[in-house]
Amino acid sequence: MNRLPVYALSDWGTSRFRLWLVDNDGNVLGETRSDDGMDAARQKGFARVLEAALDTLQAPADLPVMICGMAGARQGWQDAGYVATPADVYAITGGARRITDIARDVRILPGLSRTEGTPNVMRGEETQLLGAILEQQMRDGLIILPGTHSKWVWLVNGRVERFDTWLTGELYALLSRYSILRYSLGDAAESVDENHPAFSDAVMQMLSGQPLTGQLFSVRGAMLLKNSGPDESAARLSGLLIGAEIAGASAISGDTPVTLVASGAMGRLYSKALALAGLSCIQIDADRAVRQGLFLASQLTWCGK
Amino acid sequence: MNRLPVYALSDWGTSRFRLWLVDNDGNVLGETRSDDGMDAARQKGFARVLEAALDTLQAPADLPVMICGMAGARQGWQDAGYVATPADVYAITGGARRITDIARDVRILPGLSRTEGTPNVMRGEETQLLGAILEQQMRDGLIILPGTHSKWVWLVNGRVERFDTWLTGELYALLSRYSILRYSLGDAAESVDENHPAFSDAVMQMLSGQPLTGQLFSVRGAMLLKNSGPDESAARLSGLLIGAEIAGASAISGDTPVTLVASGAMGRLYSKALALAGLSCIQIDADRAVRQGLFLASQLTWCGK
Repeated sequence: MNRLPVYALSDWGTSRFRLWLVDNDGNVLGETRSDDGMDAARQKGFARVLEAALDTLQAPADLPVMICGMAGARQGWQDAGYVATPADVYAITGGARRITDIARDVRILPGLSRTEGTPNVMRGEETQLLGAILEQQMRDGLIILPGTHSKWVWLVNGRVERFDTWLTGELYALLSRYSILRYSLGDAAESVDENHPAFSDAVMQMLSGQPLTGQLFSVRGAMLLKNSGPDESAARLSGLLIGAEIAGASAISGDTPVTLVASGAMGRLYSKALALAGLSCIQIDADRAVRQGLFLASQLTWCGK
Repeated sequence: MNRLPVYALSDWGTSRFRLWLVDNDGNVLGETRSDDGMDAARQKGFARVLEAALDTLQAPADLPVMICGMAGARQGWQDAGYVATPADVYAITGGARRITDIARDVRILPGLSRTEGTPNVMRGEETQLLGAILEQQMRDGLIILPGTHSKWVWLVNGRVERFDTWLTGELYALLSRYSILRYSLGDAAESVDENHPAFSDAVMQMLSGQPLTGQLFSVRGAMLLKNSGPDESAARLSGLLIGAEIAGASAISGDTPVTLVASGAMGRLYSKALALAGLSCIQIDADRAVRQGLFLASQLTWCGK
């Protein structure tokens, strides 16, 4: 009855585009996803990609749209800037920029930046973070958002104190597709089993302080000398990269509350690796988190109705 | 007068093919190089590529050819196997395999393997190693052979005790060509200045024990937040990767004699990084080393002319 869309929400990354229509309780009324991420949309035109997706879902012509992700990068649709940390994560909701080359009310959320110490940025994950914090009413702890560029965010007294970026996911993709290791992994690269012994072995090896770049080639060595199959190779490569990420984050201890924002296989791999490091975590679904973040930003921007 | 070729020597890698004609003192009489490495030769035919190159240099029809490198890999021309370490490096010269599908006397040298501890292989570098050891009459020390897959070889009492492989060069190529960092480096990726402060800073950061995969993204962070240019980005990425390699090789100390087998820019970058770690090294030209290794193997195989 009352199931009318009030907002469209979009998570618009480098290689993926996702759009949801939601009602005034945040329930999903329609969803579409495609490979028209920033890279493809730069060619096709951002406005065209967005309007075509809204058409598919028969969205009203005046439905406002809230976007997060790489569409707001310098090389995206329109630069949405960054909110500098330390910062209250809710600050991003006040920074949504209106897109100027489209009639519809479309806004893009800013990312987060870190200028003290290692310079760092995030774009898209800040909205997942917002959703995760909202859902859990968190004020302190570590939030891990795995992915192409895995983010580790330290929340202190309700503020984002600092964050780091790990190239884990991108390295896995590059190494399994383009490097000498691709001969060892083949199609098995797409489905890593977190219960394969090679995954645990590799994680433990990294936790013991072995250097990552000196171990990567062992995936090939094991294939040539020990006839390791593709599944073992994929589990080993994944374990080395995720293990190096966890081993490198020295500031955590068993007492740190850890929240993992991830879905599917990614969630299983990280949960397993964190457990091997003696860390337990609460897991929140990444898709749900980003929608909740976008929905909150929409409510604060357009005052609900 | 006596300048007749007695052997052809070839360093046949994954992406590069090089061929030299040498006289009975090992002097180079002719040289040709191309992009017909293993990957291209799998398409064109190894015998055809080799005979065409020999033709270019007007080599006699009965000139024997000694090859090292990926042409001897399982996916190459003919599998030349491995000599298992610990081993006398001269052992590889006795393992040259005759190629069966060509009339000319063509042989390929085996690689080295390590089955204890981390499984590891090398193919091509063992011949550079042979040449370097021969030239210096070495019996003990560390030999570093930088490249796509950088090799660190520990020589003890004249034997290869063990070796490690670092994916440094391949990671640099993948990250600068295909990753998010490519936007920061651009064409500057091809020419890194070892005297750029960002190179030293990055090496020192890795030597202080920072985790590599947590620092790679800072190349992008520095571009977005601090307007770092392409030269700085390239120096930083190179310094992080080479620094991680040196930091990870914990078994070395200032007393270890280090020999660096490298040419050109690669030699300059590694010398600088090793110096930052307090290590001095003797440098040997990589091209010269591989020719000397191939020449020795030819002499031992065909008993001089």
